[in-house]
Amino acid sequence: MTQYRLEVRVKPRPGLLDPQGKAIHHSLNSLGWSGVDDVRVGKAIYIDMQAESADAALDAADVMCRKLLANPVTEDFEVSLVSEQEAATS
Amino acid sequence: MTQYRLEVRVKPRPGLLDPQGKAIHHSLNSLGWSGVDDVRVGKAIYIDMQAESADAALDAADVMCRKLLANPVTEDFEVSLVSEQEAATS
Repeated sequence: MTQYRLEVRVKPRPGLLDPQGKAIHHSLNSLGWSGVDDVRVGKAIYIDMQAESADAALDAADVMCRKLLANPVTEDFEVSLVSEQEAATS
Repeated sequence: MTQYRLEVRVKPRPGLLDPQGKAIHHSLNSLGWSGVDDVRVGKAIYIDMQAESADAALDAADVMCRKLLANPVTEDFEVSLVSEQEAATS
């Protein structure tokens, strides 16, 4: 078994309201960053897990997103591998 | 001016409590993913902005993180460039 660190990014679908992003957008404009056109806020979830292979870990994270981490109606998600290392013993 | 999309990932520092991550960790274990060892939850913030250059955009996002997006005491952040395209006219 190998230890993997995965990063999952969940973000609101384009076109859907994102009040938190709107609030940050206005704050940034107020602070003087007039070049900012849009802000969207999602979640970044870091998962440390053991799996047989990188593909198995990525597949598992994909299922986790569908079942728990993301709302499939309102959110999109992406999964990527951050790092891997041999587990000490298992 | 060029239009840039930046991704900012803000996450709780190692060692600091992350109740949301703990809750997800327990839920994943309950759902049968026993290989999950740890979960940390942060924010993924997508910023669309106009800037003179990619470096200028990244520097601006760095300052935004320090001033508004991240809590420097409890959170780490990373900024990366997702895409760039020429603004239509400005």
